[in-house]
Amino acid sequence: MKTPIKDFLYGGDYNPDQWPQESWGEDIQVFKQAKINSATINVFSWAALSPAEGEYDFSKLDAIVDELSAADFKIIMGTSTAAMPAWLFKKYPEVGRVDYQGRRHVFGQRHNFCPTAPAYRRLAADLVDHLAARYADNPHIVAWHVNNEYGGTCYCEHCQQAFRGWLKDRYQTLDRLNAAWATSVWSHQIYHWDEIVVPNELGDAWGPEGSHTIVAGLSLDYLRFQSAMMQDEYRLEKTTIEAHDPQTPVFTNFHSTPNKLIDYQAWAKDQDVIAYDSYPAYDTPAYQPAFLYDLMRSLKHQPFLLMESTPSQVNWQPYSPLKRPGQMRATELQAVAHGADSVQFFQLKQARGGSEKFHGAVISHAQTTKTRAFNDLEKLGDDLEKLGPQLLGSTNQAKVALVFDWANYWALEYVAGITQDLDYCQLILDYYRQFYDRNVPVDVISVDDDFSQYDLVVAPYLYLVKPGLADRLTAYVKGGGHFLTTMMAGMVDENDNVYLGGYPGPLKELLGIWVEESDAFPPAQEVKVALGQQTTAGSLLADLIHPEGAEVVATYASEFYAGTAAVTKHQLGQGTAWYVGTRLAPAGLSALIDQVLAAAKVTGLTADQPGVEVTKRVQKDGQSYYFVLNLTNQSASLPKEFAQGYVDCLTNQAPAARLAPWAALVLKKTN
Amino acid sequence: MKTPIKDFLYGGDYNPDQWPQESWGEDIQVFKQAKINSATINVFSWAALSPAEGEYDFSKLDAIVDELSAADFKIIMGTSTAAMPAWLFKKYPEVGRVDYQGRRHVFGQRHNFCPTAPAYRRLAADLVDHLAARYADNPHIVAWHVNNEYGGTCYCEHCQQAFRGWLKDRYQTLDRLNAAWATSVWSHQIYHWDEIVVPNELGDAWGPEGSHTIVAGLSLDYLRFQSAMMQDEYRLEKTTIEAHDPQTPVFTNFHSTPNKLIDYQAWAKDQDVIAYDSYPAYDTPAYQPAFLYDLMRSLKHQPFLLMESTPSQVNWQPYSPLKRPGQMRATELQAVAHGADSVQFFQLKQARGGSEKFHGAVISHAQTTKTRAFNDLEKLGDDLEKLGPQLLGSTNQAKVALVFDWANYWALEYVAGITQDLDYCQLILDYYRQFYDRNVPVDVISVDDDFSQYDLVVAPYLYLVKPGLADRLTAYVKGGGHFLTTMMAGMVDENDNVYLGGYPGPLKELLGIWVEESDAFPPAQEVKVALGQQTTAGSLLADLIHPEGAEVVATYASEFYAGTAAVTKHQLGQGTAWYVGTRLAPAGLSALIDQVLAAAKVTGLTADQPGVEVTKRVQKDGQSYYFVLNLTNQSASLPKEFAQGYVDCLTNQAPAARLAPWAALVLKKTN
Amino acid sequence: MKTPIKDFLYGGDYNPDQWPQESWGEDIQVFKQAKINSATINVFSWAALSPAEGEYDFSKLDAIVDELSAADFKIIMGTSTAAMPAWLFKKYPEVGRVDYQGRRHVFGQRHNFCPTAPAYRRLAADLVDHLAARYADNPHIVAWHVNNEYGGTCYCEHCQQAFRGWLKDRYQTLDRLNAAWATSVWSHQIYHWDEIVVPNELGDAWGPEGSHTIVAGLSLDYLRFQSAMMQDEYRLEKTTIEAHDPQTPVFTNFHSTPNKLIDYQAWAKDQDVIAYDSYPAYDTPAYQPAFLYDLMRSLKHQPFLLMESTPSQVNWQPYSPLKRPGQMRATELQAVAHGADSVQFFQLKQARGGSEKFHGAVISHAQTTKTRAFNDLEKLGDDLEKLGPQLLGSTNQAKVALVFDWANYWALEYVAGITQDLDYCQLILDYYRQFYDRNVPVDVISVDDDFSQYDLVVAPYLYLVKPGLADRLTAYVKGGGHFLTTMMAGMVDENDNVYLGGYPGPLKELLGIWVEESDAFPPAQEVKVALGQQTTAGSLLADLIHPEGAEVVATYASEFYAGTAAVTKHQLGQGTAWYVGTRLAPAGLSALIDQVLAAAKVTGLTADQPGVEVTKRVQKDGQSYYFVLNLTNQSASLPKEFAQGYVDCLTNQAPAARLAPWAALVLKKTN
Repeated sequence: MKTPIKDFLYGGDYNPDQWPQESWGEDIQVFKQAKINSATINVFSWAALSPAEGEYDFSKLDAIVDELSAADFKIIMGTSTAAMPAWLFKKYPEVGRVDYQGRRHVFGQRHNFCPTAPAYRRLAADLVDHLAARYADNPHIVAWHVNNEYGGTCYCEHCQQAFRGWLKDRYQTLDRLNAAWATSVWSHQIYHWDEIVVPNELGDAWGPEGSHTIVAGLSLDYLRFQSAMMQDEYRLEKTTIEAHDPQTPVFTNFHSTPNKLIDYQAWAKDQDVIAYDSYPAYDTPAYQPAFLYDLMRSLKHQPFLLMESTPSQVNWQPYSPLKRPGQMRATELQAVAHGADSVQFFQLKQARGGSEKFHGAVISHAQTTKTRAFNDLEKLGDDLEKLGPQLLGSTNQAKVALVFDWANYWALEYVAGITQDLDYCQLILDYYRQFYDRNVPVDVISVDDDFSQYDLVVAPYLYLVKPGLADRLTAYVKGGGHFLTTMMAGMVDENDNVYLGGYPGPLKELLGIWVEESDAFPPAQEVKVALGQQTTAGSLLADLIHPEGAEVVATYASEFYAGTAAVTKHQLGQGTAWYVGTRLAPAGLSALIDQVLAAAKVTGLTADQPGVEVTKRVQKDGQSYYFVLNLTNQSASLPKEFAQGYVDCLTNQAPAARLAPWAALVLKKTN
Repeated sequence: MKTPIKDFLYGGDYNPDQWPQESWGEDIQVFKQAKINSATINVFSWAALSPAEGEYDFSKLDAIVDELSAADFKIIMGTSTAAMPAWLFKKYPEVGRVDYQGRRHVFGQRHNFCPTAPAYRRLAADLVDHLAARYADNPHIVAWHVNNEYGGTCYCEHCQQAFRGWLKDRYQTLDRLNAAWATSVWSHQIYHWDEIVVPNELGDAWGPEGSHTIVAGLSLDYLRFQSAMMQDEYRLEKTTIEAHDPQTPVFTNFHSTPNKLIDYQAWAKDQDVIAYDSYPAYDTPAYQPAFLYDLMRSLKHQPFLLMESTPSQVNWQPYSPLKRPGQMRATELQAVAHGADSVQFFQLKQARGGSEKFHGAVISHAQTTKTRAFNDLEKLGDDLEKLGPQLLGSTNQAKVALVFDWANYWALEYVAGITQDLDYCQLILDYYRQFYDRNVPVDVISVDDDFSQYDLVVAPYLYLVKPGLADRLTAYVKGGGHFLTTMMAGMVDENDNVYLGGYPGPLKELLGIWVEESDAFPPAQEVKVALGQQTTAGSLLADLIHPEGAEVVATYASEFYAGTAAVTKHQLGQGTAWYVGTRLAPAGLSALIDQVLAAAKVTGLTADQPGVEVTKRVQKDGQSYYFVLNLTNQSASLPKEFAQGYVDCLTNQAPAARLAPWAALVLKKTN
Repeated sequence: MKTPIKDFLYGGDYNPDQWPQESWGEDIQVFKQAKINSATINVFSWAALSPAEGEYDFSKLDAIVDELSAADFKIIMGTSTAAMPAWLFKKYPEVGRVDYQGRRHVFGQRHNFCPTAPAYRRLAADLVDHLAARYADNPHIVAWHVNNEYGGTCYCEHCQQAFRGWLKDRYQTLDRLNAAWATSVWSHQIYHWDEIVVPNELGDAWGPEGSHTIVAGLSLDYLRFQSAMMQDEYRLEKTTIEAHDPQTPVFTNFHSTPNKLIDYQAWAKDQDVIAYDSYPAYDTPAYQPAFLYDLMRSLKHQPFLLMESTPSQVNWQPYSPLKRPGQMRATELQAVAHGADSVQFFQLKQARGGSEKFHGAVISHAQTTKTRAFNDLEKLGDDLEKLGPQLLGSTNQAKVALVFDWANYWALEYVAGITQDLDYCQLILDYYRQFYDRNVPVDVISVDDDFSQYDLVVAPYLYLVKPGLADRLTAYVKGGGHFLTTMMAGMVDENDNVYLGGYPGPLKELLGIWVEESDAFPPAQEVKVALGQQTTAGSLLADLIHPEGAEVVATYASEFYAGTAAVTKHQLGQGTAWYVGTRLAPAGLSALIDQVLAAAKVTGLTADQPGVEVTKRVQKDGQSYYFVLNLTNQSASLPKEFAQGYVDCLTNQAPAARLAPWAALVLKKTN
């Protein structure tokens, strides 16, 4: 059992090694002025710590740790293994990845290690062993930060060898592998394990990375394998640390929207705490980070760390407008609202050089605290000082679960089907947004989670259904649960082989339908849909559905299949199972979700929904904290529920009826 | 002399090896229910038949052949050489192609053999030898299907060596090669044959494959060479078969719109019958498949086999909407109308896995005959059972020929000229459509065909004119023929070297004009053209023409060359030669084609043209079959000519005055 | 001291080696008919001159030189080193470049030599040595033309080795290099010189060539290094020539808009005369070639040679419409107006083959002089015969300097900042156009030029400020100069490391401002700006400016920073320093430039500005030649200043009040 982090962390990545030692003290004074209490260090210092194989010099890192410890900072200690030194590439070229085009990469950039390369694994472990031995006993170190933002893929000879071994473990025999991969199509039978080649641009795949492949089973397995190899490298670092320090939490930072190449649900069990780097772009709708925070929180069903975010601008997106007054505070509090027990920035001090020198920081190039951005950071520091102790230990509670599944993410976007426009994340967000707009709390769960704790489970585009899942869903519905899925559901097994006997395969009985065929729509074309009194539209796909027990909720109102079912509802045992046969336009989807929520007897946190995000964290003593966030650049109304009887924890004042742009309140009931 | 196929074939690709043997009987029952009488097998079974070099196991194929033979199916036997086994790549890596980027490909996909690799040729021939020896005597085998959809290009060392030899045969001396390739430009002189390198992205070409090259002669010759090498590999398989079975027709299946990399006109002589795979996309205008069918029929001036098409959707185009009710039947009959003596599908049974598992099939994943698609297939089976015997032996007859020439296809799209917008197929289709809209039958011929059988020969964009062609065209016109060509005609010889003395080079006297220079138009810009009473427009290019004997048919009406000739007509001997100096807008082109047809005294099959396709096949006994097809999703009028005195061969009823969407009639005169 | 070229040159590239010797005499007669007096030869004849290493045959070149000399042509002699023979690639593959993807290129194309490859340098020098020895004494050779259009980049092992040596010279120690490259970021410390790798797609760079890189210092240094290596190869050829012929001017031809990869300002000192190839596209606005000619003239502050242009169309741009009547003459005279002492064409005779066979020429494929294009060339020849002797020795004079700096070109477009839309040339042209539209003569200078000769120095986007520059600019302003710069100015040093203490870094005191932060705008978004009475707009970026001594000239009128400074002006000593914080819309920029010109007391050549280009060359005797050019396809008014008292040097007539489309007058005052 690990020692939990005891404090709400406010701080971020700090690279004092880029600066003269005499400036560190002044930096720390500035951080303290903003109530910053923590620093993540040593994320990219391998070459600084080790000028050659077997040689280490920790004197500068010692000084940094000493200075931060003396200032009573909570330290998150990086392992520095995400960027390899030049000498390592020079000595062991195989540590560099081979890319999708089959090209070995050389020294440069970062995040480019081959996870199976023996030299990388040996020397990374040696570095971590030295670090852990040296700093294991420092009580200011509250967590170990392994590597950085795992991702990407390697297609090298080492990986190919390891892949063959991994497949042998998975399938035992080539007969099973040939069956799983359907190799009788196009003469792909494998007779010896060493005939298997990685699915890159020169082999079985074609087009750019991530697009259509010939042997879907091969590609799916390679994605599984690479995610597993990365996780294995992570575990190597983690166990090396734990040999010296079994108490302090260890994690790596997750990232992206989310990262497609790392199955975070499979990784979660190896993370002592979930940490996430959040970088919405200027035009990202507010529900997308909300979705991602809900996903991160649900990975372990416990609060997570917001590990990186920017105090002002990023520098690697196409356009980074300034955050408007109040915007930084509101968006950081959005993460807290959804379960973050920290606010962390990249970076505490803006670098003079390197690729991210124009990325925002607490201390900017101007090196003065007299800036708009620093002023906002100070105010947020005050808020978090008040809020943190009240929130620590509180949780988010949801009666609706949205299923997000990496195997489906992979399979759906790789499939050569009747439309090329399958964007799994966007399709999932269509549904997430419906709950978000109603202030209905949502957990974003895996297919392996326990459904029974939810009143409603929504699993859009559940194309790949692995063994046992259909039975578990059926039991859930029969037991009173409510379940919704959509077109493409139930088509294939875990190797992307089709379930015969009619779509949606093993979900047919649960849903009470048979889908005979599906129409596909080019962009800007759609089919009319009659739903209650409303005529709405469907796009992307339109399933031609035969109800076999289900009742018809909506019908198509154009095309040759006008009058047939577009949406169905199947009463089964105590629950209902819904099927949505097309990509409903927002208005239509909204009307449908109203029906579904009514059936599941789920309501939002507010009945009044003026476009303001409302979230709730509940403390162990039952105290509820309502985050009321205006995440827009226009003023908005306070939801009526909060007009009386609530007080803002941060100002101790009753909330006003109008919310300024980017206003962010944390309300609790007055006693 | 080969034994012709005696029956109208209805069937398609069937892969029983992907399914349990006990299911085959049931499959055959379903096929018979739809009147399906043939199956193409063994197209991709190399690895199944041969687990290692020299080892063969035909037991499963024997069983398949036995079962189909017992059911009296006509079998088209594939050679399985289009997808190589994994063990072959492992043992002989050189069988994989080197791509335009210079990269050797490894095991995966299909259609990726190097046509000159000795190991591939030896082992492919050995497989075919075993197959032919084993099945030569089976009377149910009505044809051999060699390889599959030849295409693509290899740039490997073996090909480079073979290319040098091919060039030595073509040019005999380096002086001739240097002259043909104009190597004095940019210091490209070749002094030894082994200095010649393939024109890939690392060499003389630049940009992506298929774009502008430096030494046009090199690129043209490499295209000729690769097409010839593919054809040589095809001949290797064919002669191997013929050693065992000299009677049964042998072919490979042509494809695409059409395939750019294979000169089908050069191949036609080695095909015992032309076979074509037809996959129009959802937004393909109906005249495009018509053009392609006419091209296929004209390759040997005899009926062809529609070898592949989809009974419902494809899965590899961007969007595959469902075929609307009637659409499948009408579009399959379109192929028959233009000369197909078969309706064949890919595929008879939908695969569970692999890259095409969502491609439509006669037996779908639902594995029931109670589907809309199967119902339509049954109806078509009934129709073909009636129609086939009447049509076999009939031919299409045309008085208009449209010239399509692979050398021009290559040269025009590679040329670095004054516009980058040269799309040979689209430009040819501009003209084809004019005849199509008038229901004027057209043959799509090569420059080597006999012109004298036509009243009108249209050769748009005849940029590359090889020796002798100008004389043959001149003789044709003098003898009473009518000829039309367009801007870019006559500019270069077969090596893309310019004919000096003024454009259109060797066609100057024939056309009675000199083109001094050409204007080029960016997209959306055009020049006005006065044609008779009408003011129309020209785009893409506008030639500045000096009539030298020709009369002016249309003039430019804007730009500094307003008033000069845009279209000319030259009376020569008994015929006329027309020149169109710009890409006329459809209305202008239509008015011009009216004039040209009037001059050539050619009329369409109907005077009434309500947007319905009318085609005619004529039986040896003189009986005419009129295919009247409404290839749209709206209803249309029956052309007035058919209002009385005709009966539908399929229904034995007189046709109604209105045609439903996708209505397809086959009419003959009542006696 | 070199012998200057004594005549105004009219001619161009001529490749008689592509034609039978018996045709040369006729060619020369045609050239003389057009008053052509010069020919550039031997630009691409390496393989023709040398069939193998060490073997030379100059007999054909001798004949060419003899024939041109006999006809009294001025000869510009190429060195033929820009296109390598096939045998050279075959024997020494390392002469081919390795591209950004790490791929060695093979024989083909041109301009593809590695500048550091020993075999290339040795054999190129040997060829040049033979040429120079042979032709040094021919008095008809008026210049040596080295290589051709240097450009591109090599990333091979030879270059990597040479780069390490170049860096050792530049930095002396790795400590200095590590500091310059900020290698403490992302663990990039270099401990041995041989750990340094070239910044290509497999190493530290990512994305396509020319985009964002990780270690900016590495990328900038590699750009400097490659430009220096190319220049070194040029010097090798030049000194080889000078060993035989120390008198005749030597140059290579510059090109593009301008070429990004060659620092022409660094090269200028090694060019005896600047030569430039000018190929505006059909839609290039007239101010762009004007800018480029001004840049070329300013490189050595003396007239330059227009070395290539097309007499009609080019063939390698996407679209090449015909030049309209008068257009060729007017655009060639535009070059002369801006300082060209020649009009040279590519090409004198149109090739039959090769990549540029459809590029325009004096003798076209029609091989007749009875063409519109030849007629225009004859007229221009007459004009130049009159004009040349009057103009030779005259100069252009400017009181406004626009700074164009290759290091900024590189750094700005590589930077990972808050917008991806930084197009240095376009941003510079924004400002150039303002002066162009007012007929204000401009020199386009480097940061190392002497500012004191100008009344106004405009340096937009002066992002990278090298040591000493801020002091020089400050002294210039204090001494009465006027200076303008824009957002992004002063941010980084010569290694792209940020100047701390607030933007614009070392220019803060000069400009009297501090820029706290910058807003970024996606395309089509903008901020309102109040400038005098006008409300205009800013886009791309908007700096939030604190005036610290400067006065506010314009303010933002929208966004949360409405009311703060958008443009400032700082009075310092006798001069003023202006800062423009956003990309002003043209109308706003125009109003601002009016103010700036008024402050600097600079006026245009005409007060009346009806959209006609007016330029002036001044002869040593004080005689002014006014080029009045209507560079549009519409007629325009003569600026009122010229209505009386001027005569056209070419026609000896007073100018008319209306200028026809493409009218081009060269006026001088009547006595």
